[in-house]
Amino acid sequence: MDSMNPHVRVGVIGTGVIGKEHIRRLTHVTAGAEVVAVADVDPARARDAVAGLTGARVHADGLEVVRDDQVDAVVVASWGPTHEEYVLAGIDAGKPVFCEKPLAATQEACVRIIDAELAAGRRLVQVGFMRRYDAAYRALKDVLASGSIGLPLMMHCAHRNPSVSSHYTPDMALTDTAVHEFDVTRWLLDEEIVAINVLTPRPNRRGGELQDPLLILLETENGVLVDVETSVNIGYGYDIRHEVVGEDGTAELGAGSPVVLRRDGGATGPIPADWEERFSGAYEVEMQEWVHSVAAGASSGPTSWDGYAAAVLSDAGMESLRTGAKVAVKLRPKPDLYATRTP
Amino acid sequence: MDSMNPHVRVGVIGTGVIGKEHIRRLTHVTAGAEVVAVADVDPARARDAVAGLTGARVHADGLEVVRDDQVDAVVVASWGPTHEEYVLAGIDAGKPVFCEKPLAATQEACVRIIDAELAAGRRLVQVGFMRRYDAAYRALKDVLASGSIGLPLMMHCAHRNPSVSSHYTPDMALTDTAVHEFDVTRWLLDEEIVAINVLTPRPNRRGGELQDPLLILLETENGVLVDVETSVNIGYGYDIRHEVVGEDGTAELGAGSPVVLRRDGGATGPIPADWEERFSGAYEVEMQEWVHSVAAGASSGPTSWDGYAAAVLSDAGMESLRTGAKVAVKLRPKPDLYATRTP
Amino acid sequence: MDSMNPHVRVGVIGTGVIGKEHIRRLTHVTAGAEVVAVADVDPARARDAVAGLTGARVHADGLEVVRDDQVDAVVVASWGPTHEEYVLAGIDAGKPVFCEKPLAATQEACVRIIDAELAAGRRLVQVGFMRRYDAAYRALKDVLASGSIGLPLMMHCAHRNPSVSSHYTPDMALTDTAVHEFDVTRWLLDEEIVAINVLTPRPNRRGGELQDPLLILLETENGVLVDVETSVNIGYGYDIRHEVVGEDGTAELGAGSPVVLRRDGGATGPIPADWEERFSGAYEVEMQEWVHSVAAGASSGPTSWDGYAAAVLSDAGMESLRTGAKVAVKLRPKPDLYATRTP
Amino acid sequence: MDSMNPHVRVGVIGTGVIGKEHIRRLTHVTAGAEVVAVADVDPARARDAVAGLTGARVHADGLEVVRDDQVDAVVVASWGPTHEEYVLAGIDAGKPVFCEKPLAATQEACVRIIDAELAAGRRLVQVGFMRRYDAAYRALKDVLASGSIGLPLMMHCAHRNPSVSSHYTPDMALTDTAVHEFDVTRWLLDEEIVAINVLTPRPNRRGGELQDPLLILLETENGVLVDVETSVNIGYGYDIRHEVVGEDGTAELGAGSPVVLRRDGGATGPIPADWEERFSGAYEVEMQEWVHSVAAGASSGPTSWDGYAAAVLSDAGMESLRTGAKVAVKLRPKPDLYATRTP
Repeated sequence: MDSMNPHVRVGVIGTGVIGKEHIRRLTHVTAGAEVVAVADVDPARARDAVAGLTGARVHADGLEVVRDDQVDAVVVASWGPTHEEYVLAGIDAGKPVFCEKPLAATQEACVRIIDAELAAGRRLVQVGFMRRYDAAYRALKDVLASGSIGLPLMMHCAHRNPSVSSHYTPDMALTDTAVHEFDVTRWLLDEEIVAINVLTPRPNRRGGELQDPLLILLETENGVLVDVETSVNIGYGYDIRHEVVGEDGTAELGAGSPVVLRRDGGATGPIPADWEERFSGAYEVEMQEWVHSVAAGASSGPTSWDGYAAAVLSDAGMESLRTGAKVAVKLRPKPDLYATRTP
Repeated sequence: MDSMNPHVRVGVIGTGVIGKEHIRRLTHVTAGAEVVAVADVDPARARDAVAGLTGARVHADGLEVVRDDQVDAVVVASWGPTHEEYVLAGIDAGKPVFCEKPLAATQEACVRIIDAELAAGRRLVQVGFMRRYDAAYRALKDVLASGSIGLPLMMHCAHRNPSVSSHYTPDMALTDTAVHEFDVTRWLLDEEIVAINVLTPRPNRRGGELQDPLLILLETENGVLVDVETSVNIGYGYDIRHEVVGEDGTAELGAGSPVVLRRDGGATGPIPADWEERFSGAYEVEMQEWVHSVAAGASSGPTSWDGYAAAVLSDAGMESLRTGAKVAVKLRPKPDLYATRTP
Repeated sequence: MDSMNPHVRVGVIGTGVIGKEHIRRLTHVTAGAEVVAVADVDPARARDAVAGLTGARVHADGLEVVRDDQVDAVVVASWGPTHEEYVLAGIDAGKPVFCEKPLAATQEACVRIIDAELAAGRRLVQVGFMRRYDAAYRALKDVLASGSIGLPLMMHCAHRNPSVSSHYTPDMALTDTAVHEFDVTRWLLDEEIVAINVLTPRPNRRGGELQDPLLILLETENGVLVDVETSVNIGYGYDIRHEVVGEDGTAELGAGSPVVLRRDGGATGPIPADWEERFSGAYEVEMQEWVHSVAAGASSGPTSWDGYAAAVLSDAGMESLRTGAKVAVKLRPKPDLYATRTP
Repeated sequence: MDSMNPHVRVGVIGTGVIGKEHIRRLTHVTAGAEVVAVADVDPARARDAVAGLTGARVHADGLEVVRDDQVDAVVVASWGPTHEEYVLAGIDAGKPVFCEKPLAATQEACVRIIDAELAAGRRLVQVGFMRRYDAAYRALKDVLASGSIGLPLMMHCAHRNPSVSSHYTPDMALTDTAVHEFDVTRWLLDEEIVAINVLTPRPNRRGGELQDPLLILLETENGVLVDVETSVNIGYGYDIRHEVVGEDGTAELGAGSPVVLRRDGGATGPIPADWEERFSGAYEVEMQEWVHSVAAGASSGPTSWDGYAAAVLSDAGMESLRTGAKVAVKLRPKPDLYATRTP
């Protein structure tokens, strides 16, 4: 960092639930940041989001936020199909962009963003895969890096939600739920996924017509086999489990219960009620590191390439779910720009 | 039981490592039993196995053990390919037989045993699937029966050995290792497995040329999807993991560590070194319940049908391993004799 | 053992709840034993206890059981105040005696038993401290013996009952509850306790007038400080906790849950409902090892000396509870007969 | 909060290890804060601490920091004996002060601070008891508040350090180590401690001449009995354990391991290496909440009264360690100013 105490002026596009959370976090939790401009498709909602926030301007449009001279960096938290336009504008303006997932609505749109970064010659975009900032996942990655369990051979994952809204479609098990496992698999193993197969166990009656749970099988370049359970109507809580099986041992996420309660015939460790509870710390670290990286001029977070890979994997997964067959995952050649974590 | 303190006189066929263990157990651990006759392909080994055991005869042949008037019931612990002959002889003599797995060398041989029992009109054979007698597995089954996690939808299993001998062939991952998961799946869910698919992850270099680990997928009649990791060179210990995913929650085998040690930067629960340590209690309960069932005239243990199903599943698994494709599991119609646990 | 399959004929004095449990265990669980004679203060209860048990005689009096020529060894499970007479008779007859705790009703009576053994020149009596046969406690002792946590400095114990009957008196927290911690402390550390101090925290209203819980402090010859919580109305289950703090680390009893249940917002390991559930395995091992030791002619179990020490400690604890002061524990000099575990 | 994004200008007195940590945290972790002035007894160290920090002044003296017009609030992280002067100056200036523990060097000095706050008519001082901001301790307090384990009756605590420097004196087990348990006891139970008794178990040879470990017994107004093990040479890690025993159950701090590693015969959850690792999150929340409270004009953190009580308890503990007897803890009457958490 050039200065010990930089000050990053952030513009936020989209002030729905997620956008407001980002504004709150940037204002009350993140050091060295200030929200100076916002926009939303609903102007009243935008004004409301910054009520009482000294010095924050409300723009009529997200593109104005990007182009605002007072804005150093942009957070895109609007509706998914609008991401591409704002991200491209950010790259065009040479401003760092933090974009909530998905990076864009289609693989092709993701490719256009990658091409824009390639043309610009530098990485400006970070995608909101927050698990990479979770303390437990980082400890898991550290174990892998330490070599203490040898080469990874398999991973067993479970992604469980207590319930989902009636808007949850079968495809969302891939695009919204398992997409996190797609990303952490690529990140933990530092290699690409080459095939996906979506299996459909006996359905949970709690989910009505929804095909839930799923068992998703992923194969990586090096032959690591990953099984991912998605259960989005499990009732009991929000539970993320992940075990890496290596040549010499295994490592898995700890229970992480802050307390153990002995009551009514059992010793119980509480399980988070929802993803906000489970990953609130990860969201805070994610934003803080992004602000620091903006000030330092170099991000080590998930890139446009990671957003593109997630889109390709989601598409392949949906095809597998539809056809019942294993689907090969084809990525375009990886540009050197994304070869390492630091540009 | 007719008498409160019955006395079962047992003949043991095969006095190798497993047979000697049974003799030791029947003599020093099991109540109400006495080893009165033995035979082994190596007569000296048979004599040695009962040295100091008052009143135990050594026969020249296993069939003589079965036919010995002083023998109430028979334990078959000889080489697998010889099982069929001794089990059939036991049925023929109307004597209860405890047969170590495999029940017989082929599916067809298992069918002949079933047919013999059908002809005899009663169940005389118990197969040595000891996990059904393990306290933790029984607790898991009790949870399922209680309904507290709802209908089972998936199961995640791991069967890990620290290492295997050089005689371990790829097929043994099915016939010797995963066969236990085949049986507990059928027993826990009380339904048959209808398909098997054997996947081959990146191999563990510790296992040399052996294809290890495997990920075996099982589908049951009701659509329950079971994934079974077999890792037979994992190094760190003998570890059996099993989680049942239900509609309302999950249940898994506990760690079961007798102590927790805080040393050198960690809190450690020891893991069993081998299967003897892990399942010694199960072997004891298995034998005690078998002896009690012999005295009572009714076994509730794994039957010839269970031995037959295991053989069919092993064959199907080997075919899947060979072909790389999912294989349908075809069982003959289940005779009424095996419909319930008590004849 | 002289013979590989000895047969020990046992006489049982006292056929109340505990005595009947011993008869059941000796008959259906323990190898190499047979109950051949019983007596009870209530002859009908004695007859009932062996109904259906082939070959078991009912005597009019416990002394007749001891003197019965067909009885090789005696189990004393009668009312505490009668123990002394039967134990002394057993020693007089040269027959091994397994005596439920307490060894005798008073310290002085315990001394008379010790003197009788000294006169006989050999150890014939084993006292029923079953925790020494619990797998988890044995693992704890093994850790201490291994030196992996260094010299022991402190121990933290909790002895929790869900509830107690209305007959439970304040003194019973010492004589019936904490007496187990007195014994395991002496056994784990292999040294004597020299002082006891009983503290009285805020009482649990669930226990009515009873002074419950207690915090009992023990000091050993080597200065090891042991704190023991006794909570006999804790409601949630029967829970025994024990941590040894050494110079280089600590070791504690594991949770030992056979399953972990994820339901209703938590991951729960069940806790035993009562002491029978928690220690059933220990009772079985205790009896089996005693039978083996009778056959082998040498017991390594808790001795008359251990029963005497427990009585002295209980008396000192009751004095401390009454006076509110720390009480020094004075044992007579330890006879050589009890110096080692094997005579 | 009056404004949604307040900006608190902080002066830091003392730029040793702790002071520099506070500067780093306020600059890079805490939202809404800026370090604008520092002072240290060693001016070069002060200059060094703010090198590269735009807009931070270095004063010759801590009092100048307090009086600096640009300073809204003060962090006191200088040598303990200097605390009183700076805290009193802060109160005199009407500026909020965050003071690292101890609040002052003596009970009497703490009383002078209390009197100054009473004269000022408001609470301006927060003392650095960071455990109140630890997620696990807060969960423990929530359990107590929920009533799910009933009234608290006892607490079992352990405070373990891997090792201490050669400057660690016997008194520091009270003033530096157990002082945290004094504070969390008062905070969790919301009542005062009325007696303390320090017991000295067999010493750990790793600590040389130091009397270590200790077992410290605390009694509260309501009769809750608290045992605290302090072990400052335990070797294996930094481990804080705390179990509350209630009428209906117990609650204890969870293990909190981010990962579980299966290797070398065991399943291991890592234990923090030191207090920085264990409580880094608590320090961050503590500072963030203090900054927010400064902006809001009302602190709910530990007060001067809490600092005074800690001083009295430390003195009583040292007396008990010296005399070997239980010591009554006498606090002056609690002023109404400290009756509730919010002024």
